[in-house]
Amino acid sequence: MTTQQLFWCIPAASLLALGFACYFFRMMLKEKEGNDLMQSIARYVREGAMAYLKQQYRVVTVVFIILAAFFALLAYGFGVQNPWVPFAFLTGGFFSGLAGFIGMKTATYASARTANAAQHSLNRGLRVAFRSGAVMGLTVVGLGLLDVSLWYIILDYFVEGATETQKIVIITTTMLTFGMGASTQALFARVGGGIYTKAADVGADLVGKIEAGIPEDDPRNPATIADNVGDNVGDVAGMGADLYESYCGSILATAALGASAFYISGSEMQLKAVFAPMLIAAAGVILSVLGIFLVRTKENAGMKQLLRALGRGINTSSALIAAATFGILYILDIQNWAGLSFAVVSGLAAGIIIGQATEYYTSHSYKPVQRIAGSAATGPATVIISGIGTGMISTAIPVLTISAAIIMAYLCAIRFDVAHMMTASNISMGLYGIGIAAVGMLSTLGVTLATDAYGPIADNAGGNAEMSKLHPDVRRRTDALDALGNTTAATGKGFAIGSAALTALALLASYIEEIKIGLQHIGQQILILPSGKEIDVAGATIPDLMNYFQVNLMNPKALIGAFTGAMTAFLFCGLSMNAVGRAAQNMVAEVRRQFRDIKGIMTGDATPDYARCVAISTKGAQREMLLPSLLAIVIPIATGLLFGVAGVMGLLIGGCSTGFVLAIFMANAGGAWDNAKKFIEEGRLGGKGSDNHKATIVGDTVGDPFKDTSGPSLNILIKLMSMVSIVMAGFTVAFSIL
Amino acid sequence: MTTQQLFWCIPAASLLALGFACYFFRMMLKEKEGNDLMQSIARYVREGAMAYLKQQYRVVTVVFIILAAFFALLAYGFGVQNPWVPFAFLTGGFFSGLAGFIGMKTATYASARTANAAQHSLNRGLRVAFRSGAVMGLTVVGLGLLDVSLWYIILDYFVEGATETQKIVIITTTMLTFGMGASTQALFARVGGGIYTKAADVGADLVGKIEAGIPEDDPRNPATIADNVGDNVGDVAGMGADLYESYCGSILATAALGASAFYISGSEMQLKAVFAPMLIAAAGVILSVLGIFLVRTKENAGMKQLLRALGRGINTSSALIAAATFGILYILDIQNWAGLSFAVVSGLAAGIIIGQATEYYTSHSYKPVQRIAGSAATGPATVIISGIGTGMISTAIPVLTISAAIIMAYLCAIRFDVAHMMTASNISMGLYGIGIAAVGMLSTLGVTLATDAYGPIADNAGGNAEMSKLHPDVRRRTDALDALGNTTAATGKGFAIGSAALTALALLASYIEEIKIGLQHIGQQILILPSGKEIDVAGATIPDLMNYFQVNLMNPKALIGAFTGAMTAFLFCGLSMNAVGRAAQNMVAEVRRQFRDIKGIMTGDATPDYARCVAISTKGAQREMLLPSLLAIVIPIATGLLFGVAGVMGLLIGGCSTGFVLAIFMANAGGAWDNAKKFIEEGRLGGKGSDNHKATIVGDTVGDPFKDTSGPSLNILIKLMSMVSIVMAGFTVAFSIL
Repeated sequence: MTTQQLFWCIPAASLLALGFACYFFRMMLKEKEGNDLMQSIARYVREGAMAYLKQQYRVVTVVFIILAAFFALLAYGFGVQNPWVPFAFLTGGFFSGLAGFIGMKTATYASARTANAAQHSLNRGLRVAFRSGAVMGLTVVGLGLLDVSLWYIILDYFVEGATETQKIVIITTTMLTFGMGASTQALFARVGGGIYTKAADVGADLVGKIEAGIPEDDPRNPATIADNVGDNVGDVAGMGADLYESYCGSILATAALGASAFYISGSEMQLKAVFAPMLIAAAGVILSVLGIFLVRTKENAGMKQLLRALGRGINTSSALIAAATFGILYILDIQNWAGLSFAVVSGLAAGIIIGQATEYYTSHSYKPVQRIAGSAATGPATVIISGIGTGMISTAIPVLTISAAIIMAYLCAIRFDVAHMMTASNISMGLYGIGIAAVGMLSTLGVTLATDAYGPIADNAGGNAEMSKLHPDVRRRTDALDALGNTTAATGKGFAIGSAALTALALLASYIEEIKIGLQHIGQQILILPSGKEIDVAGATIPDLMNYFQVNLMNPKALIGAFTGAMTAFLFCGLSMNAVGRAAQNMVAEVRRQFRDIKGIMTGDATPDYARCVAISTKGAQREMLLPSLLAIVIPIATGLLFGVAGVMGLLIGGCSTGFVLAIFMANAGGAWDNAKKFIEEGRLGGKGSDNHKATIVGDTVGDPFKDTSGPSLNILIKLMSMVSIVMAGFTVAFSIL
Repeated sequence: MTTQQLFWCIPAASLLALGFACYFFRMMLKEKEGNDLMQSIARYVREGAMAYLKQQYRVVTVVFIILAAFFALLAYGFGVQNPWVPFAFLTGGFFSGLAGFIGMKTATYASARTANAAQHSLNRGLRVAFRSGAVMGLTVVGLGLLDVSLWYIILDYFVEGATETQKIVIITTTMLTFGMGASTQALFARVGGGIYTKAADVGADLVGKIEAGIPEDDPRNPATIADNVGDNVGDVAGMGADLYESYCGSILATAALGASAFYISGSEMQLKAVFAPMLIAAAGVILSVLGIFLVRTKENAGMKQLLRALGRGINTSSALIAAATFGILYILDIQNWAGLSFAVVSGLAAGIIIGQATEYYTSHSYKPVQRIAGSAATGPATVIISGIGTGMISTAIPVLTISAAIIMAYLCAIRFDVAHMMTASNISMGLYGIGIAAVGMLSTLGVTLATDAYGPIADNAGGNAEMSKLHPDVRRRTDALDALGNTTAATGKGFAIGSAALTALALLASYIEEIKIGLQHIGQQILILPSGKEIDVAGATIPDLMNYFQVNLMNPKALIGAFTGAMTAFLFCGLSMNAVGRAAQNMVAEVRRQFRDIKGIMTGDATPDYARCVAISTKGAQREMLLPSLLAIVIPIATGLLFGVAGVMGLLIGGCSTGFVLAIFMANAGGAWDNAKKFIEEGRLGGKGSDNHKATIVGDTVGDPFKDTSGPSLNILIKLMSMVSIVMAGFTVAFSIL
């Protein structure tokens, strides 16, 4: 097959994924939704979730229009940018939102059906929830690949370059703007959804569980519908938009790197390098479908068998994708195909190790969480101290693993040419290796996301069962599914954060590449290096540009950038944490008010005013999401304006390193607190209702915004800062002050 | 005066400081120690503190002997290091420990005397406590300058260099090893003391205040003596060693930079650059003594007047030091004396702004703390969430301020030669400017430390008053002094952290300088740059070496280093947090056991077994301090061995940026929780004993290890990692793998 023919495998795989997503969606819809009460609760949650998403998209649309207009001004007014930027930006945002929307729609239809299925058996419950999760997984990867290939076709048709090789560079860097749109949408979805869900969750728990002593999801709790809506808008829609962004981001960054790394090898080899990440992703899509079908158990299967079934699906897909990579890159006949294949494998392996480490630190089968639970004997303060301590310690293995993957991928990609690690061509090749490792890590997203997204569905099914007063066995089964989902979700977060770090590094090279294009846009033809040597901009290499802009670790502008980047990660988390705190306090006040003012709630004689709680979460999330999200856009622009290229590079590295470590800390501390509470709820150390239990509820509540609002948003933040810098590169070279 | 004559001002100023320290110590000893009970309690605390310090120094001595032997092996066995290294290392450790010891000795003599003086009036209590704090402040700066000048005299006599200029470079870089010894000692003191004091404090609070409902420092609480001992070993001895290290570190780093920045200007100008930071510090010492004498109020002064009196002392000293700097650098007739003076002023100004921002975020006179207190209405979980959120947000102003100081100091030092910011000579000059800004920031340490160290003395005086059952008015007065101390302590922490960031950056240049010396040690004469150009090692500039080792932001080794550095800061905090958690749990168990087993404690008929609690804190601190402290030594060595110079530079920048931001976050969150509790204790939102109060106690308890163990240790960590890298530079170039 020719390279161009191979390209068509990519949209084909995407259509296959979307086709199966449709198929699973229809299969799910065929299931019964249960009795009238179950249906009406599901409808209530569905309507609440849709209402929120509408409101969210309305606000985000305004932001997108303003940003697109700004980009249009830069492109058409000042001429410092590519004319395709505003459109690519808008479509990225649109599709990312669409992925979240479809996932959420599916989830809201699936919850009552899962509860109903769980009336029969654990296994049937799993099947409905997991198939619905698969809709989400396949939609994300299907839409992702579809958009990537569509944009490629469009730009290939319209863009003109001086040479074929230059054209490919322009196409791939333009497509990064599409990634920026996706990241922007994802950040709003994660932050807004995260604030919504955690405000409701914290509010419901604080008054319901701790003060009134009623169980989770009790229909007497006014915040319970908001809590269930939150699972959908935060954990489903937010996660869908997030992973869509991660998936496209890694593919687009690697394609852009491939275009520049193989620039000198001619357009044919260059195209191969651009298609390689897409083809690996396409193979991953097909193997994910296979993996999804492998997740099946006998009718009377227990928990261990279920977990093994999920593991079988993921592990088989991972092993096959590793093998397939060698085949694809061999057939593609790309330079150093074996080395690049090993780079992909190092990414996959790193993902798996990070997943295992995450499980160790967050599952209550192991010492760390048990110690946190044990510290409840001395009250909530020691639960918090040991959770924070454990979360901080848990950053060591993932960071060392990613570091090993970075150096392995780099060295494999440059055929272990250690003596010339930093020549112009080896830098590009090495960073391409890092990018393709990120693609490898995310290639099995179709199936991993399926195992991830079914968690919130099971959670909601439990809520539905509780509110519909189904037999306690049903709740027990959905709880078991939910707990299973917690373990797989932890693994999924490890993948998302790990791939974000790799992608962000790969994007650094794209940034330099875009700076070069920016210089050409503003008409600069010659660069005078510090040594006095003159070079042609068009032929400048990465080391030339680094040299010209003096992007080294002694440049005070880079150092300031690194400080600012580290600070941005903290500031962002602080703002979103406080947003959750404020919104939760409003929720608590409202729930307390209803318990006080509406007589008969506790006896079940009066219905709480669920809608007001939904409105409080919605309003809180919309108001609070803007400032932290806009930081990611404003700070890179301001840094570029003040401190130029060196400042921006420092910012990105400071933000990426601190953000990565902070994200792992927050996700793992949150997960560990959650499971320390579950550990006690399963009857140990005094069990439910004991003082120990109450102490761990405080930990879990603190952990909520850690693991579901601030932590997972950080991986989007670090990529979005990179993408904004890339898109604004022309602006930076044209207007920077220092 | 000649430059050599000016040098003698430095030991003269140090002797002046030590003389006044002696004078204040004698004045304090003349005060009456109160009744027999007061004296015996003070003796108990003093003996416990001395016993701990002995035990601590025994463990640390073993560590120092092992490290010194290792350095001796490198110096005499492999010849990759200067022969003076082991001795300088040991003396640095010795003097840092001595500063802590003297401070603590003073504090333990002062507490009962302060309580006794407070029986007369608030003002007399302040005078005793503040004068005792002044002993500490003047001892730290006096010993610091003494050691710096002694080592200079010794090395000037013994060291031989090819030329006078080379000799000065060798002397100043050797003296950095002395700084490394001080930092190592300080880290152990801060971590060990921090674990001790917070284990005791948390343990005493959790059982005493929350479970048994008895007030702070109640003699019925078995942990109360351990708690008071802890204030001395952690907040006094630990802080003394810490600030001794900061003070010497900034002077030594700047001197080393001066020697290389003015290398080409000849030995005369070079000596001026070496003496400049020392002379500024010497002037600071004299003006600090003046400032200390300015702190006096009328006998019937209120709190506001007291605060104003302290402010007058500090502000006058700061203003005068700014003026004096211009004078000193003019008389010294150093190149660009005005620009360098402005660099000093930018450091001073940054310190003041950071202090103000810290006060805003941690004092209960302002919104942030009041909001945290307000969130207590919804329980401890929201107190924790809003405290963490606020702490994270509070990093923004200090980071932006330090960034502004960095660029201002750099630009002033290079006479705003923006077009040639990164030439070899401008890099050295610019970094020298940053170093001298750090010296400026710390120049008033004599008086700021006096206002800082009197806090724990007042705290202990309160403990003594409570246990001796003095009139409640006495306790109220010591509490007022303690609260005043909290505000000034927050400012002090801002100075320590800010100066650490500046010093760490300045040390980067010393690292490169030492790499050059290391290359010469192993006999490498010629470097072949990536461009193929050959240069002589002896004449290599910073850009040459950066170029040769490819220390830029695209080098995967530097990127891995940055990730590892960020992770190290988190891992270090995690380990020390967990250490406090574990030790505190043992303390809680012991206190509960005593309440249960020793009949009559609560009625006052039986005396608790204070000694066992002291033993638990001591054992816990000794066991737990080793691992986190050794990280700071092992990680830079391992990184150098694996990833060479680029890896180490990445590590230092990742560690410095993340560590700086994390330190501010932890210090401010801890301070804010503490004062949110005090806000309620002063009678608002329900006052003492209310649910709101209990919720804020949880926050305060979590904040204890944040602000007094992990947070303040971070500023030592980032400098120690730099110093270790510098000392091990020869080892790195000789043995690194990649």
